[in-house]
Order: sequence, then C-alpha cells, then structure tokens
Amino acid sequence: MSLVEKFRRTFMRRGRAVVLAYDHGIEHGPTDFLDNERSADPAYIIEVAVKLGVDGIVLQRGLAEKYYSGQLPLILKLNGKTSLYPGEPISVANCTVEEAVSLGASAVGYTIYAGSGLEYKMFEELARIKHDAVKFDVPLVVWSYPRGSKVKDEQSPEIVAYAARVALELGADAMKIKYTGDPKTFSWAVKVAGRVPVLMSGGPKTKTDEEFLRQVEGVVAAGGSGVAVGRNVWQRQDPFTIGESIKKIVYG
Amino acid sequence: MSLVEKFRRTFMRRGRAVVLAYDHGIEHGPTDFLDNERSADPAYIIEVAVKLGVDGIVLQRGLAEKYYSGQLPLILKLNGKTSLYPGEPISVANCTVEEAVSLGASAVGYTIYAGSGLEYKMFEELARIKHDAVKFDVPLVVWSYPRGSKVKDEQSPEIVAYAARVALELGADAMKIKYTGDPKTFSWAVKVAGRVPVLMSGGPKTKTDEEFLRQVEGVVAAGGSGVAVGRNVWQRQDPFTIGESIKKIVYG
Amino acid sequence: MSLVEKFRRTFMRRGRAVVLAYDHGIEHGPTDFLDNERSADPAYIIEVAVKLGVDGIVLQRGLAEKYYSGQLPLILKLNGKTSLYPGEPISVANCTVEEAVSLGASAVGYTIYAGSGLEYKMFEELARIKHDAVKFDVPLVVWSYPRGSKVKDEQSPEIVAYAARVALELGADAMKIKYTGDPKTFSWAVKVAGRVPVLMSGGPKTKTDEEFLRQVEGVVAAGGSGVAVGRNVWQRQDPFTIGESIKKIVYG
Amino acid sequence: MSLVEKFRRTFMRRGRAVVLAYDHGIEHGPTDFLDNERSADPAYIIEVAVKLGVDGIVLQRGLAEKYYSGQLPLILKLNGKTSLYPGEPISVANCTVEEAVSLGASAVGYTIYAGSGLEYKMFEELARIKHDAVKFDVPLVVWSYPRGSKVKDEQSPEIVAYAARVALELGADAMKIKYTGDPKTFSWAVKVAGRVPVLMSGGPKTKTDEEFLRQVEGVVAAGGSGVAVGRNVWQRQDPFTIGESIKKIVYG
Amino acid sequence: MSLVEKFRRTFMRRGRAVVLAYDHGIEHGPTDFLDNERSADPAYIIEVAVKLGVDGIVLQRGLAEKYYSGQLPLILKLNGKTSLYPGEPISVANCTVEEAVSLGASAVGYTIYAGSGLEYKMFEELARIKHDAVKFDVPLVVWSYPRGSKVKDEQSPEIVAYAARVALELGADAMKIKYTGDPKTFSWAVKVAGRVPVLMSGGPKTKTDEEFLRQVEGVVAAGGSGVAVGRNVWQRQDPFTIGESIKKIVYG
Repeated sequence: MSLVEKFRRTFMRRGRAVVLAYDHGIEHGPTDFLDNERSADPAYIIEVAVKLGVDGIVLQRGLAEKYYSGQLPLILKLNGKTSLYPGEPISVANCTVEEAVSLGASAVGYTIYAGSGLEYKMFEELARIKHDAVKFDVPLVVWSYPRGSKVKDEQSPEIVAYAARVALELGADAMKIKYTGDPKTFSWAVKVAGRVPVLMSGGPKTKTDEEFLRQVEGVVAAGGSGVAVGRNVWQRQDPFTIGESIKKIVYG
Repeated sequence: MSLVEKFRRTFMRRGRAVVLAYDHGIEHGPTDFLDNERSADPAYIIEVAVKLGVDGIVLQRGLAEKYYSGQLPLILKLNGKTSLYPGEPISVANCTVEEAVSLGASAVGYTIYAGSGLEYKMFEELARIKHDAVKFDVPLVVWSYPRGSKVKDEQSPEIVAYAARVALELGADAMKIKYTGDPKTFSWAVKVAGRVPVLMSGGPKTKTDEEFLRQVEGVVAAGGSGVAVGRNVWQRQDPFTIGESIKKIVYG
Repeated sequence: MSLVEKFRRTFMRRGRAVVLAYDHGIEHGPTDFLDNERSADPAYIIEVAVKLGVDGIVLQRGLAEKYYSGQLPLILKLNGKTSLYPGEPISVANCTVEEAVSLGASAVGYTIYAGSGLEYKMFEELARIKHDAVKFDVPLVVWSYPRGSKVKDEQSPEIVAYAARVALELGADAMKIKYTGDPKTFSWAVKVAGRVPVLMSGGPKTKTDEEFLRQVEGVVAAGGSGVAVGRNVWQRQDPFTIGESIKKIVYG
Repeated sequence: MSLVEKFRRTFMRRGRAVVLAYDHGIEHGPTDFLDNERSADPAYIIEVAVKLGVDGIVLQRGLAEKYYSGQLPLILKLNGKTSLYPGEPISVANCTVEEAVSLGASAVGYTIYAGSGLEYKMFEELARIKHDAVKFDVPLVVWSYPRGSKVKDEQSPEIVAYAARVALELGADAMKIKYTGDPKTFSWAVKVAGRVPVLMSGGPKTKTDEEFLRQVEGVVAAGGSGVAVGRNVWQRQDPFTIGESIKKIVYG
Repeated sequence: MSLVEKFRRTFMRRGRAVVLAYDHGIEHGPTDFLDNERSADPAYIIEVAVKLGVDGIVLQRGLAEKYYSGQLPLILKLNGKTSLYPGEPISVANCTVEEAVSLGASAVGYTIYAGSGLEYKMFEELARIKHDAVKFDVPLVVWSYPRGSKVKDEQSPEIVAYAARVALELGADAMKIKYTGDPKTFSWAVKVAGRVPVLMSGGPKTKTDEEFLRQVEGVVAAGGSGVAVGRNVWQRQDPFTIGESIKKIVYG
C-alpha cells in the first residue's frame, strides 16, 4: 500500500480529513493560548480532539511524549522554530522518524520554507526524513510555506501553487498549504499537487466562525482533501460548535 | 561495461538521445504549466513521452514515486531548488542514488552551478553521488550550469565550454549544457567534453518551432549527442508535431 | 518509569528541588569566584552542597571528571560557552550523554537560546541529546533562555513563558528558567510547562538575602518545583545560612 | 617503506621528478587549451607524457576514469575548483583516496590555500585524506598555494617558504609549490620543507622556452626534487622539444 | 591512573615540566627560524631537546611522522592554523588521537580560542578529541588562548585566569596558558585551574635571557607546573645555556 493510501486510510476515513493542529506552543509561543487559557493544556486539547471525533492531531515530540497515548491518530511534527528566531527562515528536526514511530505516530510532519536563504538545508533534511519515512512506512506530511525576500505574499495563488508543487516533487504523501482566498485559485494548487492530498492550513482565528467556514467550503469546492486547523477551534471558548460545523462541511 | 556505454545503450539506442525534461515544477514552479494546463499533470507528460517514443524522461523523486512505473527509461534528477531561493546558487540532493535505483531510474541527474559562492558544496555532494552511482552501476548525468557574479553570460561559448569540461573532469557519464547559439562554438564545448555525451538543454519555449529546431540542428552539426527538452515540447498545445520534428533531426 | 518521574525521585525527594549550580567557571569566568575566593575550588563547592544537604549539583564535564565521586546526585551540564564569545548566542555540547553517565550523572543539562540566529543549531543538537538521554535513561534538564535581537527583556513574563513552553515541546524532563519578578506571571510559565517540573534559575547575587528569598517564595507560590541556585549561595561568605533558608522555603 | 620513499621510487627513479600536470580543465577552463587545441584531448596529453617518458601525470577523477589505463604513473588530484568561483578560496575533494586507488593512482594530490578564510575547511579535509592515504598506502602530494587577503604576493620567498613548511607540518609526502624567482630564495623553501621532496609548479607559459628552463635550472640548483609542469609543455605546438630540455636539466 | 597523573608521571618526573615547543612552522611560518637557521631542521630541534634532557617535545603530525622515533616523550599537537588566516580565529585538528598514538605520542595537544566567533566549533571538536583521549588513554593538553573582539589584552590577569578555568571545565589534563606578567596574578590562574597542571607558554624571544628567566621564576613562585618553551630556546644561537637555566629554575 502506498503511503498516500495509508494516509487516506488513517486520516481520511470519511473521504476528507479534519486534523487538529497544536504545534503553536513552539511556533508562536503561549500567547496563542490566551484567548482560551485551557488551551495551554495539551491534555485538554487531546480531549477536545477526541470528543470532536476529528481524524488526527498534530503534536511536537515533547507533547507526544508527555501526553499522548493513542487517543486518536497522531501526526508527529518533526521540526519547529520559535517566532523569536530572527534569521533566514529555517526549521530543523527535533525528532527522528524512528522516535516519532516509537511515540505512536501514524504520520510525520515537516515544514519547508522554500524561498528562504536556507531552503537547501531544509531540502537536505527533508530528504533524510523522506528516506526514513519510507523505511518506517509512515506517511510524510509536508507543511509547505514559501517565505523569504522573493515571496511578497505568502497566500498569493502563485506562491501557494508553487508550495503545493514543491511538496509533490519532494515526495510528500500529504501536504498542508495556506489558503489562496478563493476556491478557483485554490483549485489550481490542488491540481498541481497531483496525487497528493492537500489540506488547508487553518491560520489565525477569524473574526467570525462564518469567515473561517467559508474558507473550508472553498477548500472542499476546490477539490482539497481537508483542513488542519488549530486556533480557529481551540482559541474559541466553545471549540465544539465550530468544530462540528467544520466536520459537516469537510465530510459533506 | 562503462557507465558512458551504459548511458548510450539506454538513452542513445538510435545513435543520439531525445530526453523529455520535466523538473520544472520545482525549478520554476507551476507557472511553467500555464501555456498548456494539461502539462501540470505528470501522468499526461509521461503519456506524451511514451507516445512520442523518446528515449527517456527526467523526473524528481516525488513524481517518480507517485507516477512512474517503468513506462520508459527514467533519469531521476537528484537535486533541485526553487526559483524563490534568493541566495548564492545551490541545489542539494533530495534523493539518494540508492533510492533513485529503487524508484526504477536508469540514470541519475545532478545540477552543479560552478561559479556560485557555494560551488564547493555542490562539488562535495556530487562526489558522494558519483561514488554511489558507480556503486549502484547507474550513469551520472551532470546538469552543468555555471552561474554567479563572475558569470556574465551563461550561454557564452567560453562559459558553456567550461561547463562541459567541468562535467567531464568531475566524472559525468553524460551531461546537459546550454546552447551557445551556433554549431561552431558548440562544437568546441563538445570537443572539450571528450568522451562524455553532450545533450543540449532545451531552455524556454522559442517563439516558433523553427527557432528551436535550428538549435537542435546546430547541436547535431556540432557533434552533440542529443537534447533534453521540456518546455519546447509540452508548453505547446500540440507537443507531438514538434516532438516528431526533433526526433527526425536528432536521429537523422 | 518516565524520565520526569525519575527526575522527581532523584532531585525532588522532598517534593521540590534545591540544586546547587556551578557552571559559572565557563559561562562567566573566574570573576564570579572573587566575592568568596574559596568558591573557585570545586571541592569546596561540593563540600558545601553535601553539608547543606541539597538535592543535587550542576557541573561541567571537566569538574565532574576531576572532582566528582558520587557525593550527591549530579546534573552534568553538557554544553557551555564563554562570556567572551561575541557572536549570535550558541552553546554546544562538550560532553556526550554517554560520557555524562560514565561520569556518574543522574541527569544531563543543556542550554538553548531560542531567539538566537543559531537557534536551529541548538535545536538540532538538543534532538541528538534527547535521543541519547532516552537511550541511556537519564532525565534531560533544559536551561531555556531566549536571547537575541527580538528578545528585548529576557525576564519578561511573555519570554519566560515562551521559554518554558519550548522546553516542554522539545522534550525536557525538567527545566530551568528565569524568574519573571512575581508569582502571578511565573505561574503562567509553570502552567504552560505542563507536566515538566520548573526550576527557577537563581541568577546574580541579590543585594540582600531577603531579596532572593522573596523570589524563592514566589516560585513556590507559583507552583514551581524548586530552584537551581549558584551565586546566591556560594558568593556569600556564609553559604549555609542562606542555603538553609532556601531549603526551608522550597521544602515547605 | 615510508610514503616519501614510495613517492621517490615511483616518481623520482632518475633522482628527480618530471610530472606532467593536467588539471587545468577544472581549474582554469578550456581556454588553457586554445594555444594548442590538441591539448583539449586527454588522450593526446597522455600520449605526449608517455612519449616524453616523464615520471607521471596529474589528472582529475573524471579524466582518469575515462582515459587512464596505467600508461604511466598517475597522481590523482583529489580536489579542484573553477576560476569562476568568487568566494574565499576553497577547493574540496571530488574523489576519495579509495576511489583514486581503484582508478590506478600511485599517489594522490590535494591543494590547500593557507591564508584563505576557509583555510580550516581544507585543513580538516586534508586530515581525512592523509588518514586514508596512510590507510591505502599511497603518497600524498600537497599543492601548497597560500592565498587570501594577507597574501600580497603568492611567489614571494616568505610565502613560498611558508607554503613548503605547512605542507611538511600537515603530513605531505611530496609537495608542489610556486617558484620564488631565484635559486637562493627557493633553496630556503626547500630547506624548510625538510625531508619532503619539493616540486616546482610550472605556472603559465613563459614567453620563451629559455625563460622556463632557467626556472627549472634554479629549482635543481636550489636542491628541489623536480617539476610538475603543464602549460609550459602542452601549450606549445611542439611539446617534445621543451619536454626533452626539461628532462635533461632535471635528470642532470 | 587518572590522565592528570599520567601526564605528571611522563612529563613532570622531576616535579615540574620543561617541554620544548616546536609548532611554529605552521603557526608563524619559517620566519621564526631565521634567528637560528639550524632551527628550521626538526632533527636539530629534537637533538637539542634530547641533549638538554627536557621532559618532552611538541610537534605537529607531519614532523612526528618524518622525524620522531621515540627520542623523548612527545606531545602531538593536533590542530594548527597559519598566521595568514584572516578570519575569526579557528584552528582545526589535522590529526586524530588515534593517529597521534600510532605516531608515538604520550599526550595530545589542542588549542582553543575562547572569545572567537568560532569558539563553538573548537569546543565541539575538543569534545570529540577529549572523548578519544580518554578512549586511547592519553592525556589531553589544552592550549587555552582567548582571542577575539572582546579580548582586549590576551595576557591580562582576568583573561589568563579565564583561559585556565575554561581548560579545566572542558576536561584538560594539563594546560598551556600565557603569562600574566607577575607571580601574584598568575597564581590566581593556577588556583582556578584546580587540579590541572599549568604550563606557561614561552612566547616570543625576550631581549635578554634574564627577562625570560624572571618569567619562569614567576611561574614557579605562582605554583605553576612548568613551561612549554620554544623560541626562547631555539631562536638563540646557544640554546643550551638558557635551557639549563630554565631547567634549574623549574626543577628547583
């Protein structure tokens, strides 16, 4: 069974995927938890994910080690950087694929910042991770976020499509990309991603639930395979209402 | 059998080679697919290659993994960078020779940017790849594209000849270089490449078919061993007409 | 038994930890020993620690090798840099986990400077150390000190909480962070650290004993797990009086 | 038998060495072949070397692989860079010692640019090569060419003597250095090279044969062990006349 | 037996050590040999050392390989850089501990430039060397020379004491540091070095013998363990007179 197929069977049992993202503690810091202070607690987040019945959760190694025990399928995010880092964008693995597997992961995640002056270092590391993902038979989910001096708008249709294509070319078995703003342009990104399932990155909390749900509808209309959403769920005091709405749209 | 001979027997059965290049998704991004939107689909490209009956196709690992199943001989391009990358030119391997072989490759490709401030990093990596290419008995095709502050014109006869020679000196079993503009100067590049077959890099789509075909004729006249062409075939609405013309000229 | 639990059983037998820090020789240089010249002698420091009956001591490899023989539990500090180093903050391991274990360590320590332009190098190395800490079954204590051009105030509540969270996310089994100045804001750092025990870094000698003891009280009030204190003990002519006061507050 | 002795027995059978250098294709590019276009062909060069009866030839891995079959003793030059490279001088190995041996080399060569801002990278790599040269029992010939912002004149007696000494200190079994301009100053370089044979680097083609032959005489008078000459032989339409003159002087 | 003890038994049989340093060929170049041209010859230097009856000699790998055969105990200096190098101070190993042992070394030496922008690279390498020194059971002598933009005076008491402490913390079994100018301040450096023997680095030739001998007396008065001296012995036409005077003072 191909790893794309394995990803589908694990995280897209209902046709498309809703994944709860929770790597914000390292990427943005605990200020992301202030809107809903319970969200600082990984146990709470896992509980939300289980109650909502989403397809999987994204955790860094430290959280997996201390809080995860198979409650739902896990995408172990292998790399991360802080928002305090001032240099050319780079995010390095803090966990190996082998360790991820031993922590119970059903897939591994890795961010690449194409367009960074250190792009090549991430491509090098991704190659090693891809190698190990094949060896340990776990799907590789690529967070593909072009960034750098040549990237004027990270969510422009051209950049998002490029992001999708790079993930395909480098061996992703699923990918997480940003939303372009409308289904038409997003469908081009989905098209150039070829046979690799495309999840939309949820992004910052929108002003209203509706605003976010329109994006989710756009993803589905564009042929996307689902969403990996964090803040738009757990930064709200009631994560369940919006969560159910998202599920409804994604699973159709 | 030497690896040059192996390259000849696989990709130059009719004396010279026509190879379909398709690593543009990572190098240039999906904008290259806009002239002929079907070209975004690797399955379509492989189909074109098979129907045209060319000698081989160039794919990155991700495409090979998801779309390739031995339809025609494969040159697995081991490295790549995006056009968003802003620094000193560098392209690093995202696939090992061993993985390439397990994906079905009959040859491996690697780009070097002599003249880059990171030239030495590519020479170092090429050495490791050369080592493995010998170990796994697959020909090594070097994309030799000098680039950097001292390289004023990438297609000047001096630079192209230097490109050819560097590929020879570093152990290429075949090479892909740019066209100099005329057969006389290109023949010098072919000469200094010695016993290593020289393929012309097709480059951007020319205004007319004829313009490109004149280049192909020049390559043949100069003693070149063929072409690795992408955009000039699949960016045209009808890739078959020009494809057949190219074959005619190359195979003689 | 988890490594957090192992840390608790070794260094928090009385519920919370008092650890004597003594890695100043490399980090600050021998000027730190001038207030109490006996403090230059590692044998004296170990003697103080034993007499005080604290839970453990922090030493660099060289001191452990030359002076340590199991007098009390040891946290072997694996990395260090001098205060003379002028570049982007980076501290690299001068000892492996395996060596630390063979020197008798019950835990290993590693500093990360999130926010440094070389943040990623420390995250990479921490990953290798984490791997080995699990392999050799020793708790990993992370010194988490954000630093760099984006870090305006190393002791601001936001930065300290971020420091705590990064340590959790990267796999710390215990952590050492700076004090925020009051129990309320420190308790947020403790909260986002989740299941990982938080020790306050003692910092420079305060003008009065009371000033430091108020900080220790704040740590306890905030739910912290103890302190790792150096200068506030051994820079005083009488390290025992303040040491006993600290113990009283921490052990309650 | 020491590796110096082994170098002497292979390349200095007549007391001193005449070696034909031919690594210009990578170092300078094919413009070096324009004075005598036949010189672009490695087969021609090897033929010249054999006919002249010199002691050995210097080739990069690519040329050895494609053209060398034991016609005369080979020094496989392990590293190289192009003249297009714009940064701090650095030349990295494109071939391992083991590969050199399997290509038939009787010795390996490596260039160091002491004085480069990347000097330390070459010293590091030389150490690994030295290790392997001992392991595979092949003499190591060091091309010692100080270069960089502190090196005002690469052929000054002080710099050339320093070059010689560094080669000795780092473990060369033979060395190639530039000529200082006169036998008196060159003899100091020979002296500080100690027990390591010193070959003069031939350098660019001199205006007249005599001019070059005076240099060769100077080397011999200074106690040098011979010359490694390229352009002054094969850039001339008749390489044999000057070649015989060189031999006469060197072998005495 | 500890490696400090092993160092003492080999190099401090008479209570303190006199070691002849001779790594100047790489560090300063052959100009250091001009005051006494015989000093360019390693055989001469070894002869001087043996005749003087000093405790050991310091050589780089190349000299050891070509000239050393157990005449007296050897400290193999593992790293070195030239004075032509223009960048942030860094000196990398050109020899492994294993190779040093096979060349007959009784100890290995390594220079660290704390305060360099590349300090961390040397600390990293020192860690590997320390590991191997323990494995091969040879004492590690650290040349500790702080240098860089924050180091205004390399011989100030504060800097020299810091140098001594860093060597202790990083695992030195003996150290070589610069003289502070007087016994009082040097004794502080000796104190913070703890149980690790401290040798004074001889430095440039003083105007008179007496000037140097006063330094040696100061070292002894300060509790130092001896000297590692080069230029002050072999740059003088008569190295024996001053050598005997040094011995007299050091051995007492």
